[in-house]
Amino acid sequence: MSFLWEGRLQASLHSLAKAFTFSPETDLKLAKYDVTGSIAHTKMLMETGVLSRIDGRSILSGLNEILTEIKEGTFQISQDDEDIHSSIERQLIERIGDAGAKLHTGRSRNDQIVLDEKLYLKEILPLLQEKIRLFQKSLVKKAEEYENAVMPECTHFQPSQPVLLAHHLLAWVEMLDRDRRRFGYALELADVSPLGAGSGTGSSFPLRPDITAKELGFHEIFSNSVDAVSDRDFIADALVACASTMTHLSRFAEELILWSNPLIGFVSLPDEFCTGSSIMPQKKNPDVLELIRGKSARVISAVSGIFTLMKGTALSYNRDFQEDKEYLFPSVETTALSLEIFAALFDSITFDTNAMEKACEKGYLTATDIAENLTKQGIPFRKAHHAAGILVRRAIEKKSTLANLDPKEIHSLVPEISPEFIAELTAKKSVSLKASPGGTGPHHVAQEILQWKKRLQ
Amino acid sequence: MSFLWEGRLQASLHSLAKAFTFSPETDLKLAKYDVTGSIAHTKMLMETGVLSRIDGRSILSGLNEILTEIKEGTFQISQDDEDIHSSIERQLIERIGDAGAKLHTGRSRNDQIVLDEKLYLKEILPLLQEKIRLFQKSLVKKAEEYENAVMPECTHFQPSQPVLLAHHLLAWVEMLDRDRRRFGYALELADVSPLGAGSGTGSSFPLRPDITAKELGFHEIFSNSVDAVSDRDFIADALVACASTMTHLSRFAEELILWSNPLIGFVSLPDEFCTGSSIMPQKKNPDVLELIRGKSARVISAVSGIFTLMKGTALSYNRDFQEDKEYLFPSVETTALSLEIFAALFDSITFDTNAMEKACEKGYLTATDIAENLTKQGIPFRKAHHAAGILVRRAIEKKSTLANLDPKEIHSLVPEISPEFIAELTAKKSVSLKASPGGTGPHHVAQEILQWKKRLQ
Amino acid sequence: MSFLWEGRLQASLHSLAKAFTFSPETDLKLAKYDVTGSIAHTKMLMETGVLSRIDGRSILSGLNEILTEIKEGTFQISQDDEDIHSSIERQLIERIGDAGAKLHTGRSRNDQIVLDEKLYLKEILPLLQEKIRLFQKSLVKKAEEYENAVMPECTHFQPSQPVLLAHHLLAWVEMLDRDRRRFGYALELADVSPLGAGSGTGSSFPLRPDITAKELGFHEIFSNSVDAVSDRDFIADALVACASTMTHLSRFAEELILWSNPLIGFVSLPDEFCTGSSIMPQKKNPDVLELIRGKSARVISAVSGIFTLMKGTALSYNRDFQEDKEYLFPSVETTALSLEIFAALFDSITFDTNAMEKACEKGYLTATDIAENLTKQGIPFRKAHHAAGILVRRAIEKKSTLANLDPKEIHSLVPEISPEFIAELTAKKSVSLKASPGGTGPHHVAQEILQWKKRLQ
Amino acid sequence: MSFLWEGRLQASLHSLAKAFTFSPETDLKLAKYDVTGSIAHTKMLMETGVLSRIDGRSILSGLNEILTEIKEGTFQISQDDEDIHSSIERQLIERIGDAGAKLHTGRSRNDQIVLDEKLYLKEILPLLQEKIRLFQKSLVKKAEEYENAVMPECTHFQPSQPVLLAHHLLAWVEMLDRDRRRFGYALELADVSPLGAGSGTGSSFPLRPDITAKELGFHEIFSNSVDAVSDRDFIADALVACASTMTHLSRFAEELILWSNPLIGFVSLPDEFCTGSSIMPQKKNPDVLELIRGKSARVISAVSGIFTLMKGTALSYNRDFQEDKEYLFPSVETTALSLEIFAALFDSITFDTNAMEKACEKGYLTATDIAENLTKQGIPFRKAHHAAGILVRRAIEKKSTLANLDPKEIHSLVPEISPEFIAELTAKKSVSLKASPGGTGPHHVAQEILQWKKRLQ
Repeated sequence: MSFLWEGRLQASLHSLAKAFTFSPETDLKLAKYDVTGSIAHTKMLMETGVLSRIDGRSILSGLNEILTEIKEGTFQISQDDEDIHSSIERQLIERIGDAGAKLHTGRSRNDQIVLDEKLYLKEILPLLQEKIRLFQKSLVKKAEEYENAVMPECTHFQPSQPVLLAHHLLAWVEMLDRDRRRFGYALELADVSPLGAGSGTGSSFPLRPDITAKELGFHEIFSNSVDAVSDRDFIADALVACASTMTHLSRFAEELILWSNPLIGFVSLPDEFCTGSSIMPQKKNPDVLELIRGKSARVISAVSGIFTLMKGTALSYNRDFQEDKEYLFPSVETTALSLEIFAALFDSITFDTNAMEKACEKGYLTATDIAENLTKQGIPFRKAHHAAGILVRRAIEKKSTLANLDPKEIHSLVPEISPEFIAELTAKKSVSLKASPGGTGPHHVAQEILQWKKRLQ
Repeated sequence: MSFLWEGRLQASLHSLAKAFTFSPETDLKLAKYDVTGSIAHTKMLMETGVLSRIDGRSILSGLNEILTEIKEGTFQISQDDEDIHSSIERQLIERIGDAGAKLHTGRSRNDQIVLDEKLYLKEILPLLQEKIRLFQKSLVKKAEEYENAVMPECTHFQPSQPVLLAHHLLAWVEMLDRDRRRFGYALELADVSPLGAGSGTGSSFPLRPDITAKELGFHEIFSNSVDAVSDRDFIADALVACASTMTHLSRFAEELILWSNPLIGFVSLPDEFCTGSSIMPQKKNPDVLELIRGKSARVISAVSGIFTLMKGTALSYNRDFQEDKEYLFPSVETTALSLEIFAALFDSITFDTNAMEKACEKGYLTATDIAENLTKQGIPFRKAHHAAGILVRRAIEKKSTLANLDPKEIHSLVPEISPEFIAELTAKKSVSLKASPGGTGPHHVAQEILQWKKRLQ
Repeated sequence: MSFLWEGRLQASLHSLAKAFTFSPETDLKLAKYDVTGSIAHTKMLMETGVLSRIDGRSILSGLNEILTEIKEGTFQISQDDEDIHSSIERQLIERIGDAGAKLHTGRSRNDQIVLDEKLYLKEILPLLQEKIRLFQKSLVKKAEEYENAVMPECTHFQPSQPVLLAHHLLAWVEMLDRDRRRFGYALELADVSPLGAGSGTGSSFPLRPDITAKELGFHEIFSNSVDAVSDRDFIADALVACASTMTHLSRFAEELILWSNPLIGFVSLPDEFCTGSSIMPQKKNPDVLELIRGKSARVISAVSGIFTLMKGTALSYNRDFQEDKEYLFPSVETTALSLEIFAALFDSITFDTNAMEKACEKGYLTATDIAENLTKQGIPFRKAHHAAGILVRRAIEKKSTLANLDPKEIHSLVPEISPEFIAELTAKKSVSLKASPGGTGPHHVAQEILQWKKRLQ
Repeated sequence: MSFLWEGRLQASLHSLAKAFTFSPETDLKLAKYDVTGSIAHTKMLMETGVLSRIDGRSILSGLNEILTEIKEGTFQISQDDEDIHSSIERQLIERIGDAGAKLHTGRSRNDQIVLDEKLYLKEILPLLQEKIRLFQKSLVKKAEEYENAVMPECTHFQPSQPVLLAHHLLAWVEMLDRDRRRFGYALELADVSPLGAGSGTGSSFPLRPDITAKELGFHEIFSNSVDAVSDRDFIADALVACASTMTHLSRFAEELILWSNPLIGFVSLPDEFCTGSSIMPQKKNPDVLELIRGKSARVISAVSGIFTLMKGTALSYNRDFQEDKEYLFPSVETTALSLEIFAALFDSITFDTNAMEKACEKGYLTATDIAENLTKQGIPFRKAHHAAGILVRRAIEKKSTLANLDPKEIHSLVPEISPEFIAELTAKKSVSLKASPGGTGPHHVAQEILQWKKRLQ
């Protein structure tokens, strides 16, 4: 084994310690960003004269070779390397000799690892935003396809009032749009170049952090070297956006799982996203949705994990931070894949609109319309609400729908209401009565669809 | 007991259920916002003609009376009320009669509670930002006071290189500034009026959500009624900003606790923020800082709590959401108080700069300067690093500082280095060598202080 | 304000610090245990001769007076007290003079607070076990009441096979029984007296920890004073048992919430555990169950909270630990109340066994019986499974049940199966075929009920 | 691709769904247990006559071949397999033909996966207990080695009183011993065989769960088939024991990290468990301990993760449960490795007893002895405490130790105390005064060491 720091310590790393401190699979994900950062650093060192043109060109050529290997998948970390940074520096020196030993001038692994992680985020966060947009598009398309279908909205998982399925689906689009914004905020907070902070003190070399920041496309530059290497907030910010997204996807998965139970039967999931049973021949299980729901727990716990990790650490850099990657990579990958799966699943999902409309008959969903009708006649809402409640109670006793109640009985119980109004009060009728912006009235929902189509272009 | 919904259900609430569902202390915190929202709702109903001028004025006058009582602290919720919304509606009806029973027209508790919580956040989040700013000012003032003091920066809690204490303190200012931004993002995401969403479907009354939104100072209006009542993202967003802030304060508390141990002795905490022991007469314990560190755990766990709460809930509103307040209020209050305490504590904290400077002699903190000096002479950094390591190892063997090594020995081990350079390499000298922006060089730190003073004005 | 430690520190506690460090409501819950512990400590000091008989009797008499006040609810903590321990010591001295100032001999608040918490746990944990037992009894009684009812068991929330409702209900009894064991383990781990550990070092007085342990009913005595005051494991152990229980109750609540949706309609919840809507007159919402589900999140997050609290604390006592009570009390109270509510709710719950039996017709739940029938004829199970799958697919295409498939068609598709077998394969028949112990066969379920009745006596 | 359930579903699994549902690396860890379980199942099927002798022997021979390959590391899962269970069944059928298709008779993957996980736990939990024991032995050995060394104990990370280093080290042994018990409890709760529960209903075959349980060494047998497949409590139980252990190791790591800072300097960590810096030549960083502290966060968050995973799942089996392995395996592996590392690290750790003894002079650690001395003269402890506090305050003002205070001044401030007592009150003297069992008095600590040596034999 060879380490960057062998001048001072006398024993080589214990095999258990080695197993504990080094994770090549994880590190490999940062290889590309590490070389990209080194290239920018080299150019800056050349521009400031810290590195000679000759040495600089030699380093750049070596780094570009390595970058090519990484992209082609032929790059390898040796078991003897300490980490990805050491591995690349070693391989550079093996290729170009002494000049390679000058790469690390004015730099520490402390600012280098932050840079690698931020470059990763600057690439991946916009990709996650794009995956959200694509899923939103799938949803809007499906909403348009089912523009006239009604369904029983629930509160407390009890039927509340009829809504348009399209309106219901667009609720998910809203939620996801906030997640897009959250990824945007996470990106803003991460978009600060740390290169030049060194081990946390800056450097006695006349470094120019502005040059590397510009080269690498950062919008801001660190202004305090201690903070630059002590900070893992940007990991937490990204995880929070992932957790919020996965919480939404989990809620959505929950709903679709419930809807695909045959007693509810609102949805038919595409076979290619379901599995069967090893013992029960009839089974078609919504495994993929269950796993999205299940995996959300891990992303959620990653958030408390990263805060727990940080909360006891004095300044500046602590090795505990290495664990940040164990939260970041799986969370990002799970979120990305879940979004892709949901979008693909929605391309071939079908809703049973008959079942939905029929379900609106169970649960007295139009009682609110009755109360509001009474209110429009001048009866205080609280009293109107009470009156409608009496009709519902009678219907339950008679095991009848509201529409099928005897008109005479209606009149005797609540003289102010027109029995015809009740008789004609279907789910579609109820929906059509909705007059307020943002509500489920067909006119407003049509506009809602239109606006989303424009926004997601 | 009387409930808003007694028309339909026949049994009154079980005493256990009552104890479980009703939390007057918590609800009381929302009373002010609830009435404010009702006033805006009434005005809108009047403007749209849903409510007559006479009824409207009567309601407004009753609500204003109640608002006055809330502000004066004389308002009370009865044990017979179901929640704060019911209590206010009941008390309104008791005061003004039938007109009061019209207040709830076109509204549900589902949109009402979201409104209350958002009005709370719109008031409290800027206050938290302001508390951060005040603490930042305390820190910058202290940094200015100790502008020339040096201290041993740590990585891995091992001495790394000397830095200016001012530079170290400003690292905390940076962190807190990101938290200010986070509260800003949380505010942006919460600043969407939900009023008009009703139970989650909109209304058959011609409501004007834009009017209430404007009256209440919201910048955006909900555009999907289902989402408006199902969403508790804004609670999570606020909690995340609290958790991030508390994590930083916990890290800071950890550092000051360590620094106040007599073996380190960098800081003397003001007596009025310490307590003693019931048994050990000599004790002066940093209790307040320990509690900030301890309480951060609860705010962190609130984040996983709120996501856990939401992750399994299908649309739309679910009563589980009532628990959001159990996370929100304590987290916000803890964060606010912790910021105030930290600011007050910094007004009278004193640092022992002698102890800090002396500590720089332990731990060979200038070894990097030696390596960089060699590098400036053309020796590749990796080899320079190795050479400096050899000097450190020898100093350890001799139980000597680097500065006290025998010049001849230095020359024999590393001929390229000037023994004079090493002899003069004090902590202050090391700091003065730092030439890069964002680093701990005195010139850059002076600028850093200046910029923060401007920004925090 | 007066503090136990005013000899050394010169400033009195800052008002912010006071607000932060003192929580009288929380402390009051420990008052009873604190006095009980002090009584035992006094007796031991008398027995070992550290305290004179006269002083000892005076202290005991004063403490007993205070204990009476606590039990009668007239005891009060003053805003000037530092904590419950200080308050009781102050009030004792006010009553009996100088002798009271001898109470704290050989003791520290460090061992005292651990003692108080453990005495609380030794009382409350068996109570929680008892509440579990009572709920289990309610469940077994309900199982017996519905001994013959069948229902569609689900896996993946998709119908799997018919089971007896009684068998399904007893699954919850099993889960709760493991929780009873968990509370027992938590109790075993907590049942170690810490009194005599002092501040963490033991004492120069010849204390007899065995005497106080015996007096207070502990089964074990601490054997390392440093550990005794540094340890908050017992809080975590209790929280884990609460979290496990609440997770089970949350799962159960989830199921009942789903079952009370009218499209499923398996259960009718008692009105006194439901609430209505402020806007929708027909609503009957399972609020109490939703809140149990919601509150489980807080108990779960308490577990990560307590570990997070502890994970960065070096030995021995740290003030961070004060926060343990903020997790413990609400978690215990929530768990206790949730168990009571569930037991009360089950006393008046009713299941719609017709709906359940009818539901068994949806979802082809007897396909496994067909496969197993084929297997019994010698067809390898994997092939039998495939054959039954073909029948299901045909039934779906024909929108038919399995029982209603044309016998000829059955024969042509799977010649080995008897069409009569399929035609007679009702849910009840399927259940009656189950022959294995622990399964849902009526014979086994009857035994299961019998055994639980015995065990829960 | 071929799946166990292809009779019913028409589309093959989407590539995204495949990527999401299948994790060969994770599954491979269960291969050994899966085959072992299948062997026991086969034997039971033979014994009950469900399977013929010929078929049974053929299956057993095939399974044993596969088991050998697993142990030799040559066993492979194909990308086309659905999971480990399917893979083994497929490979069995490929080897032995039709008989292999009979293996799954009377079994489901639902009971099979629980069995696999429990077999894993039955093997790994005792191993974790053994690793704890070995680490405890290392600690006791080190305690014996340093039996006479004194150190300043801290509360609030402020010096409290002198203790023996041995006593302090044994505090960790106590904590770890509770963890051993926790793993024992987790084992008890997991030691219930689920085989025979089938998909969750039992079976129409006359299975004998007692036979498989005995064959596999289980102490209990499931008694409710629904619970048997719905339960993942045993995962949570194991994770809790891991989290508790890791919390202790994190606390210990924190302490050693602090102690290895040169200003404290109590400990010298073996070089082979430290690393250096890429930039700072002098650095020797306690990386391994930092990583243990860091990794504890992940194990802690796994606990909230598993509860979060379960809390919303109705009965019986849900695919969400597949994620349990993502918590279990890394947590167990991290805990095992951390214990091994700590034990190895303690074999070559050295403590600087001079530094420790010298540190006892800073912080007035003997003030409690002064107070207790006064109390022994009949002064009430509260007043004695006050008097000792006055001496400490004076010593601080004079920047003196207590021992160096002018005897005349002592007499004038506190006439009751003997100045000679104070002058001779070294740390070792203070420790020797401790008279209570469980405390740090040398006699008691010697016994403590002896008892642990016996117990850990």
